[in-house]
Amino acid sequence: MKALVYHGPGKRAWEEVPDPVIVEPTDAIVRIDVATICGTDLHILKGDVPETTPGTILGHEAVGTVVEVGSAVTTIEPGDQVLVSCITSCGRCRFCKEGHYGLCTGGGGWIFGHTIDGLQAELARVPFADTSVYKVPAGLTPEDVIFLADILPTAYEVGVLNGGIRPGDTVAVVGSGPIGLATIMTAKLFTPSKIIAIDLADARLEKALEFGADVGINNGTTDAVAKVMELTNGLGVDVAVEAVGVPETFELCTEIVRPGGRVANVGVHGHPATLHLETLWIRDVTITTGLVDTLTTPQLMRLIEEQRLDPAPFATHRFELAQTEEAYDVFAAAAETHALKVVLTAEPVAVLPEHEAVPEVALV
Amino acid sequence: MKALVYHGPGKRAWEEVPDPVIVEPTDAIVRIDVATICGTDLHILKGDVPETTPGTILGHEAVGTVVEVGSAVTTIEPGDQVLVSCITSCGRCRFCKEGHYGLCTGGGGWIFGHTIDGLQAELARVPFADTSVYKVPAGLTPEDVIFLADILPTAYEVGVLNGGIRPGDTVAVVGSGPIGLATIMTAKLFTPSKIIAIDLADARLEKALEFGADVGINNGTTDAVAKVMELTNGLGVDVAVEAVGVPETFELCTEIVRPGGRVANVGVHGHPATLHLETLWIRDVTITTGLVDTLTTPQLMRLIEEQRLDPAPFATHRFELAQTEEAYDVFAAAAETHALKVVLTAEPVAVLPEHEAVPEVALV
Amino acid sequence: MKALVYHGPGKRAWEEVPDPVIVEPTDAIVRIDVATICGTDLHILKGDVPETTPGTILGHEAVGTVVEVGSAVTTIEPGDQVLVSCITSCGRCRFCKEGHYGLCTGGGGWIFGHTIDGLQAELARVPFADTSVYKVPAGLTPEDVIFLADILPTAYEVGVLNGGIRPGDTVAVVGSGPIGLATIMTAKLFTPSKIIAIDLADARLEKALEFGADVGINNGTTDAVAKVMELTNGLGVDVAVEAVGVPETFELCTEIVRPGGRVANVGVHGHPATLHLETLWIRDVTITTGLVDTLTTPQLMRLIEEQRLDPAPFATHRFELAQTEEAYDVFAAAAETHALKVVLTAEPVAVLPEHEAVPEVALV
Amino acid sequence: MKALVYHGPGKRAWEEVPDPVIVEPTDAIVRIDVATICGTDLHILKGDVPETTPGTILGHEAVGTVVEVGSAVTTIEPGDQVLVSCITSCGRCRFCKEGHYGLCTGGGGWIFGHTIDGLQAELARVPFADTSVYKVPAGLTPEDVIFLADILPTAYEVGVLNGGIRPGDTVAVVGSGPIGLATIMTAKLFTPSKIIAIDLADARLEKALEFGADVGINNGTTDAVAKVMELTNGLGVDVAVEAVGVPETFELCTEIVRPGGRVANVGVHGHPATLHLETLWIRDVTITTGLVDTLTTPQLMRLIEEQRLDPAPFATHRFELAQTEEAYDVFAAAAETHALKVVLTAEPVAVLPEHEAVPEVALV
Repeated sequence: MKALVYHGPGKRAWEEVPDPVIVEPTDAIVRIDVATICGTDLHILKGDVPETTPGTILGHEAVGTVVEVGSAVTTIEPGDQVLVSCITSCGRCRFCKEGHYGLCTGGGGWIFGHTIDGLQAELARVPFADTSVYKVPAGLTPEDVIFLADILPTAYEVGVLNGGIRPGDTVAVVGSGPIGLATIMTAKLFTPSKIIAIDLADARLEKALEFGADVGINNGTTDAVAKVMELTNGLGVDVAVEAVGVPETFELCTEIVRPGGRVANVGVHGHPATLHLETLWIRDVTITTGLVDTLTTPQLMRLIEEQRLDPAPFATHRFELAQTEEAYDVFAAAAETHALKVVLTAEPVAVLPEHEAVPEVALV
Repeated sequence: MKALVYHGPGKRAWEEVPDPVIVEPTDAIVRIDVATICGTDLHILKGDVPETTPGTILGHEAVGTVVEVGSAVTTIEPGDQVLVSCITSCGRCRFCKEGHYGLCTGGGGWIFGHTIDGLQAELARVPFADTSVYKVPAGLTPEDVIFLADILPTAYEVGVLNGGIRPGDTVAVVGSGPIGLATIMTAKLFTPSKIIAIDLADARLEKALEFGADVGINNGTTDAVAKVMELTNGLGVDVAVEAVGVPETFELCTEIVRPGGRVANVGVHGHPATLHLETLWIRDVTITTGLVDTLTTPQLMRLIEEQRLDPAPFATHRFELAQTEEAYDVFAAAAETHALKVVLTAEPVAVLPEHEAVPEVALV
Repeated sequence: MKALVYHGPGKRAWEEVPDPVIVEPTDAIVRIDVATICGTDLHILKGDVPETTPGTILGHEAVGTVVEVGSAVTTIEPGDQVLVSCITSCGRCRFCKEGHYGLCTGGGGWIFGHTIDGLQAELARVPFADTSVYKVPAGLTPEDVIFLADILPTAYEVGVLNGGIRPGDTVAVVGSGPIGLATIMTAKLFTPSKIIAIDLADARLEKALEFGADVGINNGTTDAVAKVMELTNGLGVDVAVEAVGVPETFELCTEIVRPGGRVANVGVHGHPATLHLETLWIRDVTITTGLVDTLTTPQLMRLIEEQRLDPAPFATHRFELAQTEEAYDVFAAAAETHALKVVLTAEPVAVLPEHEAVPEVALV
Repeated sequence: MKALVYHGPGKRAWEEVPDPVIVEPTDAIVRIDVATICGTDLHILKGDVPETTPGTILGHEAVGTVVEVGSAVTTIEPGDQVLVSCITSCGRCRFCKEGHYGLCTGGGGWIFGHTIDGLQAELARVPFADTSVYKVPAGLTPEDVIFLADILPTAYEVGVLNGGIRPGDTVAVVGSGPIGLATIMTAKLFTPSKIIAIDLADARLEKALEFGADVGINNGTTDAVAKVMELTNGLGVDVAVEAVGVPETFELCTEIVRPGGRVANVGVHGHPATLHLETLWIRDVTITTGLVDTLTTPQLMRLIEEQRLDPAPFATHRFELAQTEEAYDVFAAAAETHALKVVLTAEPVAVLPEHEAVPEVALV
């Protein structure tokens, strides 16, 4: 089969590799119907994720059709179309039993395209299939559910649910990239009274307004703290969600949250932040961090099925699987291409793709 | 001043009574701007509420303008426009301090038009004003917030919050009268995937669909249990809200709720129900009852202010305060008049009222 | 091997049966070290549980040593000593993934000695072994943990946790049989300020006081409602736990619970109860039912390991497995023998058993 | 009357001042029966709290007898003995209505001995008396409840409840001063399986063991992280409570907490800490800060009344009110005197005080 293989920092190739086979009785083999690319894949390609070794197939988000199952698999069978999620759950360890699949100590967690071969491929081996995949409901297409593989449950669980957003709350979402937009989209499930998007790029803030934010603040040109206080009668927001991953945005969240409020960190951080305990100790704040568990995937899938949640606006570009390398270029150049998420399909892309004018950009 | 006075079962009159005066330092006197009528007022008029004695002014829902405050009142002053709620909170007893104002043992709870003079009047004395009224935000009219006086927080707290409705849930609301409609409206704040309305009257079910229900089941002509099971793959609903107040509808709720689900009783009951513990003991159900606390009034007011919640569709008929008796007739004849809530205003009703063709109906 | 086989109402025998074998790759075979008998076993023997067919081996509580595992089993291996719990979890269905193992729709739930062969035997086949058994920590004996197989998690989850007991609460436990005593014992983990035991038998109430109740009320000779109100300044208890299973005791719970309080039903009911909604609708009560999930088994095991919980007082009688029939007689005659739980061991019972003077009693 | 008056950094005097008088109708005047000194009083004396102006009477913890009440006070009357708490609640603002008295914006919060005259005096004016004092139950003495004025609810709410301690948890309490000891004492209400005390002083660790810790770690001489990992099978603790108030101890808490665990900050901080988001972002931790609300004071008082909680061990030294200055010296020199809390009584101290050998120490 063909797959997108990582060959060390800055190097990748869509190339022929051996077909995957059943190894454990709990495995399934899945033919990929649709996949996508995550910002984390770009980090791996930059060499930021040393545990991903050269030779690994990348990708942790896909929808596929089961072609074979191990002897212990009971809930899916060949022919079933399933969502294969970024998080694998062994179903047996303490953390999986408590719903914390992201912390799995039994061989799961984030493994696809990280510590085992991933999903940007024609076929994939899926460990712990019974506890890690989700059947696509009749009436939904692979593209309808592909963003449940990572971005939507991440935003919902780590941002919205950890943030404890309630109807009537004022919510700030710092960062209007794909994960910030997914936070805005899923925050609206709880009907906050106001969502404030904060970002450095006006183009991204416009996108945030399209996704449902009520106000956009460019914190490069505006004093975001002052503006938030003005919008909240000097109180601060009920919930601030960090969706960037740098110390400055985290610290901004702790400045704009009201006494008694919550800061939910979604961003992936590479550096420590300063926590101003000398002011925060008395302000009754709650700060959470987290990797997605995908525990809410069935709940979000029902919402898509019943048309309460529409992930379609994330799909800005479409490619065939064989064009995966081109798709990486487009996705990596999001500032120019305005890509949010690319859709990689096994089927030929009928509609003329929108990515013709990709500028010459270096791999970030 | 003039007020609507109860004179024993079946008797009421809009008549001259003495103006109210400050009695306690925590009192306020309020000039009524807008009031409304509740189904409970009809119960009192029928003589079903013996603790309400003849001579009592009726009504427990109003918006008014403060004209005088007692010496201990600090948070409102003459000229402020305030919502006066069905529930009074002393702010001092155990229950008030725990947010259970409806259970107040310090002189509050449901007192207006029940154990003290009520709000269908030109003026009213408001005990414990600091802890029992809510300023109307700039930009909102009295009519925008009048239904926060009872029906919206009742449906939201006792139905939606007690029911623990979450995004993606399937919810059944049994009863499509005003309180059932308010449950449907406020349930949507949590984006359930499906709301099933159940009622005996097709006209009310049509109204339920207008208010946001996805399916209506007439349980006079359809087997509601079978239909719910069909709609939920045989599982039952996540949450069933009882909004009628008779044993049959409560029992229906316990039949259609899924294992692990919740039944939230909102209806006012006069008779015991049968609880089928021989089947329910093993089904992990949670059943709640409750009187509204109005703890969420500020939260719901923010949602109206930010246009996330629109109570306007409840206001089916408008009258001047002096027409309160006529308004009672229209409201009591809801089956014919299709009245949901009537609005009684101190100002002349500019728009020609829609109630001209009120049929001759007896007081129920 | 030998096992206790059900042969229809009133008939059972400790007899030779074929050894169990691995059927599914997720199975394990366990040699029973210690087992016990549950009141439910007596119900089956009376013929009250029609889905248990003649020929079934009884029993759903045991500790054993793994002798063989299926090809998909990864977390235990031959030689491991494990608790085999009354509840089996497939780990794959919606309910198992939400921690509701008792509601398992994937082939688990309560199956041992019910729909498949049980644990009062020398050997047993254990389905879904990875997600259904718990390793016995080093330093603990089988008898230390045997009551985690059912009675302790049942009382803790369905009584104490569903009841939401908090430090300082006043708690009534209605019924002082084994499950009521286990509720008293595990309620104390949350340090209620007062536990009131209510039962018809003084002997059982004395036992309740030994297990940690502060007051005993014999509701055959005392007006329990009046006495509870006297003990709670007329308010009622914060939490009432039903641990009998008849309508009268359930209704008593709803009479003695305070406004805003909780009733947790643990009893197994065969008949409906009357729910006095005409008084309860306004009292803000929460009523829960439930079958145990055993989700808290690891938590309770840690408490035993660290000597915070001591189940030893439940073990009133000891027998060898081969004496299982005699043990049934003693357990069934609890009113005379004062048996709480009997311990059946594969090892010879070293200490002279206390059960010599068992009276001649009919099988109940 | 006499009172302890602050006269600027390092200066204080027990001197004659005017008697307090009722100012607002919600005020009460209380004759102090018992008071105590807090570490915060020492901070004020050092000049660390600039909003406390010279001339202010110090102290925010007392039990007294009501001698006069304002016209709006309804729940207490002259002769009642009441606990006067460190936190005053206006009962009217958003935060008070949500139970966050510590964040009161209506004139309450921490005001005694801070922004208004305090309680180390013969008499005190108590604002918002109805919502801020607690009657001492019959059968309890002032000394039984004096530590409910601050230290016990602080430890319980900000440490134990914010930390979400559950039965069976492993808990680390960093800091074994009075507030750390109070955390240990109140953590035990939830029966954790193990409490690990961490401190730099062996004497304080011994005290921690007396108060109920299971293990003491001197992090001056031992690698606390390594030791905690050894005690928790490499996992880390479920809950870490910071009870010191310096960056190092906060950072230690974030190192020893397990994935999915909670860090509850109780310490008063003067400097920022470093938050290692580069490791914490993926570990699902929750961090809380908070000032006490005293919302749980009635709950803790019931526990003392029912002898589930015994604050007596905190009272290491007793003085008459007139000896308050001497008591400050003893309390400030805790390292030498081993004082935990001093009791200041209006009555003569019958027992010969233990504080004769106070070394010559400078005011810290």
